[in-house]
Amino acid sequence: MSQIIAEELAKKQKEISVAEFFERNKHILGFGNRTRALITSVKEGVDNALDACEDASILPDIYVEIKNHDDGECIIIVEDNGPGIIKQQIPHIFGRLLYGSRFHAIRQSRGQQGIGISAVVLYGQLTTGKHTKIISKIEQDRPAIITNLVIDTNKNRAEIINTDTIHWDKQNGTRVEVSIIADFKRGKKYVYDYLQSTSIVNPHARITYKEPDGTIHIFERTAEQLPQKAEEIKPHPYGVELGTLIKIAKNTKARQLNSFLKTEFSSMGDRTSNAVIEKAGLDKNINPKDMTRDQFLALHKTFKEIKIMAPSTDCLSPIGETLIKRSLKTETQEISPEFIITSSRPPSVHSGNPFQVEVGLVYGGNLPKEGPVKILRFANRIPLLYQQGDCLITQAISSIDWRRYGLTQPAGKGIPTGPAIFMAHISSTQIPYTSESKEAIADVEEIEDEVKLAFRECARKVQKHINKKVSRVKTREKFDLITRILPEIAKKSAHMLDKPVPSLDPIITKIMDVVWIEDVVEYEKVNRKPVQTTLAQEGAEKPRENVITKSKIMVVNYKRNSQKFNLYAIIPKDAVVGTVTPKPIKITSNYIKWSFDSIPPAEKVDVSFELAGLEKGDFDENDLYVENINPAYVIGADKWEGD
Amino acid sequence: MSQIIAEELAKKQKEISVAEFFERNKHILGFGNRTRALITSVKEGVDNALDACEDASILPDIYVEIKNHDDGECIIIVEDNGPGIIKQQIPHIFGRLLYGSRFHAIRQSRGQQGIGISAVVLYGQLTTGKHTKIISKIEQDRPAIITNLVIDTNKNRAEIINTDTIHWDKQNGTRVEVSIIADFKRGKKYVYDYLQSTSIVNPHARITYKEPDGTIHIFERTAEQLPQKAEEIKPHPYGVELGTLIKIAKNTKARQLNSFLKTEFSSMGDRTSNAVIEKAGLDKNINPKDMTRDQFLALHKTFKEIKIMAPSTDCLSPIGETLIKRSLKTETQEISPEFIITSSRPPSVHSGNPFQVEVGLVYGGNLPKEGPVKILRFANRIPLLYQQGDCLITQAISSIDWRRYGLTQPAGKGIPTGPAIFMAHISSTQIPYTSESKEAIADVEEIEDEVKLAFRECARKVQKHINKKVSRVKTREKFDLITRILPEIAKKSAHMLDKPVPSLDPIITKIMDVVWIEDVVEYEKVNRKPVQTTLAQEGAEKPRENVITKSKIMVVNYKRNSQKFNLYAIIPKDAVVGTVTPKPIKITSNYIKWSFDSIPPAEKVDVSFELAGLEKGDFDENDLYVENINPAYVIGADKWEGD
Repeated sequence: MSQIIAEELAKKQKEISVAEFFERNKHILGFGNRTRALITSVKEGVDNALDACEDASILPDIYVEIKNHDDGECIIIVEDNGPGIIKQQIPHIFGRLLYGSRFHAIRQSRGQQGIGISAVVLYGQLTTGKHTKIISKIEQDRPAIITNLVIDTNKNRAEIINTDTIHWDKQNGTRVEVSIIADFKRGKKYVYDYLQSTSIVNPHARITYKEPDGTIHIFERTAEQLPQKAEEIKPHPYGVELGTLIKIAKNTKARQLNSFLKTEFSSMGDRTSNAVIEKAGLDKNINPKDMTRDQFLALHKTFKEIKIMAPSTDCLSPIGETLIKRSLKTETQEISPEFIITSSRPPSVHSGNPFQVEVGLVYGGNLPKEGPVKILRFANRIPLLYQQGDCLITQAISSIDWRRYGLTQPAGKGIPTGPAIFMAHISSTQIPYTSESKEAIADVEEIEDEVKLAFRECARKVQKHINKKVSRVKTREKFDLITRILPEIAKKSAHMLDKPVPSLDPIITKIMDVVWIEDVVEYEKVNRKPVQTTLAQEGAEKPRENVITKSKIMVVNYKRNSQKFNLYAIIPKDAVVGTVTPKPIKITSNYIKWSFDSIPPAEKVDVSFELAGLEKGDFDENDLYVENINPAYVIGADKWEGD
Repeated sequence: MSQIIAEELAKKQKEISVAEFFERNKHILGFGNRTRALITSVKEGVDNALDACEDASILPDIYVEIKNHDDGECIIIVEDNGPGIIKQQIPHIFGRLLYGSRFHAIRQSRGQQGIGISAVVLYGQLTTGKHTKIISKIEQDRPAIITNLVIDTNKNRAEIINTDTIHWDKQNGTRVEVSIIADFKRGKKYVYDYLQSTSIVNPHARITYKEPDGTIHIFERTAEQLPQKAEEIKPHPYGVELGTLIKIAKNTKARQLNSFLKTEFSSMGDRTSNAVIEKAGLDKNINPKDMTRDQFLALHKTFKEIKIMAPSTDCLSPIGETLIKRSLKTETQEISPEFIITSSRPPSVHSGNPFQVEVGLVYGGNLPKEGPVKILRFANRIPLLYQQGDCLITQAISSIDWRRYGLTQPAGKGIPTGPAIFMAHISSTQIPYTSESKEAIADVEEIEDEVKLAFRECARKVQKHINKKVSRVKTREKFDLITRILPEIAKKSAHMLDKPVPSLDPIITKIMDVVWIEDVVEYEKVNRKPVQTTLAQEGAEKPRENVITKSKIMVVNYKRNSQKFNLYAIIPKDAVVGTVTPKPIKITSNYIKWSFDSIPPAEKVDVSFELAGLEKGDFDENDLYVENINPAYVIGADKWEGD
C-alpha cells in the first residue's frame, strides 16, 4: 500500500524552472502589489543603467520616463549612455533569470543576483501580456539593435519576437521599454523619493525623470568624477565556509597547497600561506584535490587562528564621510538641524566578502519631535525603501540605548522616538539581502556588529558634542563672571582705598585654572579653479561654490604655570591643507599636529589652518585633541588617544 | 572604444546555477546566522515529514533529534512514518533545488517551492563539508534504502556518495540526517517553541523531540483524525494574471474557448463560461491558440466583471474556529484570560489562488499589561517565527485602531500594547512568502484586506462582548434593586396601611421594560464513546475527556405586553446537536432557531440544547440573536442580521 503511494507520489515530482518559480512568487522579487511593482521596475532599470556606465567608466546620464494609461498599464522607459550590449547577449541579459556578469565577480556592484531586469520583463509579460523592447548601441558608427522579447518561463530562456537594426541618435547606450500593470498614483511619491535618494548617494550621475503628465525632474550631478572603481578581488580566507573552501579546491588549477592558497585567496602572501599550512599541520606540497575533509577542516580552522591581513578595499566603493555629511546637509537644509555627525568603520569580512559600514546621524532643528526617528538605509549606493522592520540596520539601531542622547525609547530598546534621522550605508562585494527584491539586509552577525559599532561611535561623538557644549557653556559663564565682575570689584576697592587698580590676570588664572581653547570656522569664496581634489566640485551645468575653509583656533593659558603640550586638529580625508600657522610639526591625511613648547600664564596663542577641496559646511566644527597635558584642565579639546 | 567595452563585458556574462545562487545567498533561505540555521533546518525537515504523511493519509508520528558537538556542529535527525520515497526520486528530492511535487499542484500544503529540504542539505555541506544521509522505506517487506549525497551546486544535481539497502525496523517512512554548523545554545528555545506551535496547529500529529542532553519532549496528538484532505483544484479566474491566462491557453488541449474555460479553470460551468464569452464579445468556438492579445485582454477584463462562484474550498484545510479556540485555551491556561474570541472569513482568491483567513484574540487575565501584544502567525499550519515586522499579518493588526478595546496604541496605529495575544492563520494553495525562507507573508492586497476584515470582526465581537457584559451588569443592578427593594417597600406600606401586599409583577415589568435573556453553559462527563464527529476526541495514548455541552437559556418577558419573536443560538460547526427544548423550528450547521408565539408579561420560558463532539470549554458562552422584536428592548441577545 505504502509502496503504491510512494510510487504515485513519485510521479508528481517535477523540476521547476527558475522563471516559473519567480513568475509564481513575483512578490519575492518585489512585485507583490501594484505600487511596489512600479518602484521595483524603475529601480531595477536604474540600478542596471548605473552599473553599466560605471563598468565602462562613463559618467552616467540616465533618462527615466513613465507613461500611465487609465487601465493601470504603465510604460516604463529607462535609457542610459553606457557601453551598450552586444546583440548576442541581449536575449540572455533580459530574457533569463539567474544570468549575469556580476554574480561571480567579487567586487561592489548594485546588481549581484542576475535577476533584477529580467524580473521586470517577466512581470511585464505576466501582467500585460506584452513583450519588452530593448534598443542597444555599442558604437557611434554602427546602427543600434532593436529587440522585442518575452521570457519562455518553462525554459527560462528568451523568446525573441523580432530583432532589427535602427538608427539611434546616440553615441552608445541602452534603452529598455516595458509595459507593466502598476499603480502610478500611489507609487508616484516613492519613485521620486527613490530617484532623489539615488542621486544623493551617486553624486556623479545625472538623472532626468519625466512623469506621465510631462513634468520633468532633473537630478543634476554634483561631482564630475566617477567614484573610485571597485576592483575585482579573490575571496578572503576569513569567513569562507568549509564547503566553499572544498569547492574552490576542487576547481583550482593549483597543484600544491601553498600555491592554491596564494592564487585563490586574497591577503595570502608567501609568509601567511606558509604559517597557515604549518599551523594546520599540513604538507605545503600536497595537491589540494587529494586533500581529505579532515585536512580541509584543519585548514579552515587555522584560517581563523592566524592573523591574516584585512582584505584589500579596492573592491569597495564607499561614499565617504564628507560626502555623506554633505548629502545629509543638503537633504536637511530646511530643517536646520542642531548637528550632523558621521562615522565610518574600517572594512571587515563576512563569508569571505569584504564590506564596510558608514553611518550618519542628524539631530534637532525642525525635525519632528514626535514619532519614530527616520531611518535612511543604503546598500551599495542603492536606497532601500521597503521592509525596514526586518532590516539589520533597523535592528542594530534598535539594540542601542539612545535615551541619553535626547531621544525617547521605552526600556532603551526599539526604534527611538524624537527629532533625528539615522542613515547607514553598507558597501560590500555581496550584500546579504533577505530576499531577491533587495529591500532589507539579513541579520548576518559580522555586519550587524559593525553597524552597531558604527552607531555606537556616532553615539559617542554625539555625547562628546553634547559634553563639549555643556562644559563650554558652563566655563564661559564662569569666565564671563570673572572677567566682568572681578575688575568691577577691583576698581571699586581700589577707588575706596585710593590705591591703583591691581592686575587681575594672576587671580583670574587662579580661579579659571584651565587651558581655554576656542575655535571658529569660516569660509572664503574663491573664483579660481579649486585645488585638485579627489572630489572636484565644479559641475558643468550648475557651477558649485568654491570655498577655502578657514579654521581659527585660540589657545589661552589660564593656568598658573607655563604649559607645554601638543595640539591635534582632525581634518577630513578629502581636504587639501593650505596655509597653517604656527608651523605644525606634522601633517597627515587625518590631522595637523602642533607642539607648544611653553605658553606662559595668561598668554594667548593663535592657531589657524586652511582647507581646500571642500564645500561650504563640509567642515563646520573643529575636532581638537591635546597630548602631554592633563585633559581635565583643558576646555575645548579631548585627550589624544593616538592615530 | 565603447564596442570593445561592450564585448569585454559580454565575455563576463555567465549563467548562474540556482544551487550556486542559494549557496551564495543562504540567508534568503533562512540560514543567515547559526541560530536561524538550526531552526530552519528542523522546520524544513518537519514540514516535509508532515506533508509526506498527509499526502498518504497517515497520522504523522515524527521524531526529531539534535546532537550537538562542541565545535558548533549539530546533527539534525528528522524521521517520519510517511510513505517513504522511491529510490530513483531520493537524489532529486534532496539533491536539487526547485524540484518537487507541490509547486504545480493547486492545493494547500506546507511545501510549495521545492527548495526547503534541499536547502538544508546545501547548508550542511557548505558549513561542515559533510554529506546528508537519507533512509527511506516504502514497504514493510522490502529493505530500506540508504543514500548518502551532496549537491553539485554547479549543476544543481545530487552527487551520490553511496547508496545501499539496509534493514530498518519500521514499516515505512523516511529519515534524514544532516550535519550543520549551528548555535544550539541560542536556538534551543526557538526549536522547542517551533515544535510546540506546530503541534498546536497540527493536533493530529505526534512529535517526539530529543535534545542533545537526552531530554525527551513528547508533543502528543490531540486528534485521531487527519485534517480534511486538501484536494487539488484548477486555477480560479479571479486574479489570474493576463500573462498566466495566455500561457494556459498556449498549453491547453481544449480547441474551443468555452471548453477551454470549463476545463482549465475552477468555478466555470456552462452558464458562467458562456456569460463570460458573450460579455467579452468573443466567439465561443474560437481556438484559444488563435486568440490575439486583445482578445485575451477582453476575456481577462470580463472575468472581473461577471460574478463567478467562489472557488471550491476542497483545496484548503483551515484549522477551524473550535480548534483555534481550544488551542488558544490550552496555550493560555495558566494565564486565565478574560476572554478568547475567534473569527474566520469565507475563502477568497489572490492571483487565482484560493485562501482563507482565521484569527483569534486572547485578552486579559495574567497577560503582561506592559509591552507590545504577542502576535502568533501561522501559514498552512506552519508557525512563522521570524520577520514579524514585515509580515502582512502584523501590518493588518497595526492598521486597526485598538484603543477602544482596552489596548494602548499611539495615534491608533502600530502594534498595540497591552494584555492580549493576536493569532492569525492563513491557509492557501499559494502563500506569498516574502522570501524562500518562508518567514513572513508579502503585502498582497487581497489577503491583507481579508486579514483586516477578520480582525475587525474580532474587534466587533470584543466590543459586543464588552457591551453585553456592561449592559447586563447595569440591568442586573436595576433588576436586583427592583426585586429586592420594591417588595420591601410594598410590604412595609401594606403593613402601615393595614392592606394586603399588592402583586408587584406589573410594576416590575413596567420599570424593567425588557425581555431578559440569561444563559449558562455546563458540561456533563460521558463515559461512552462520543457521537461521530469530524474531530474525534478519543486519543489512543492519552484519552481525552468526553463531555456533553449543555446550554440553558432563560427568557423572561419583563415587558407590559405579550412578546412574539424568534430566538437564534449560534452553534460551532463541528458540534453535533443533541436534545433541544422547546422544539426548535430550524436547525442548521450554524444555528438553532426557536419561534416564541406569545410570551405573556412576567412569564418565563426555559430553553436548552445539548452539543456533543466538543471538549470542555470549546463552547463556553452562548451567542444569541433575536428577530421580529426591537433589539433595544432585549438584554442578552443581539439583532439577527440573517444567515
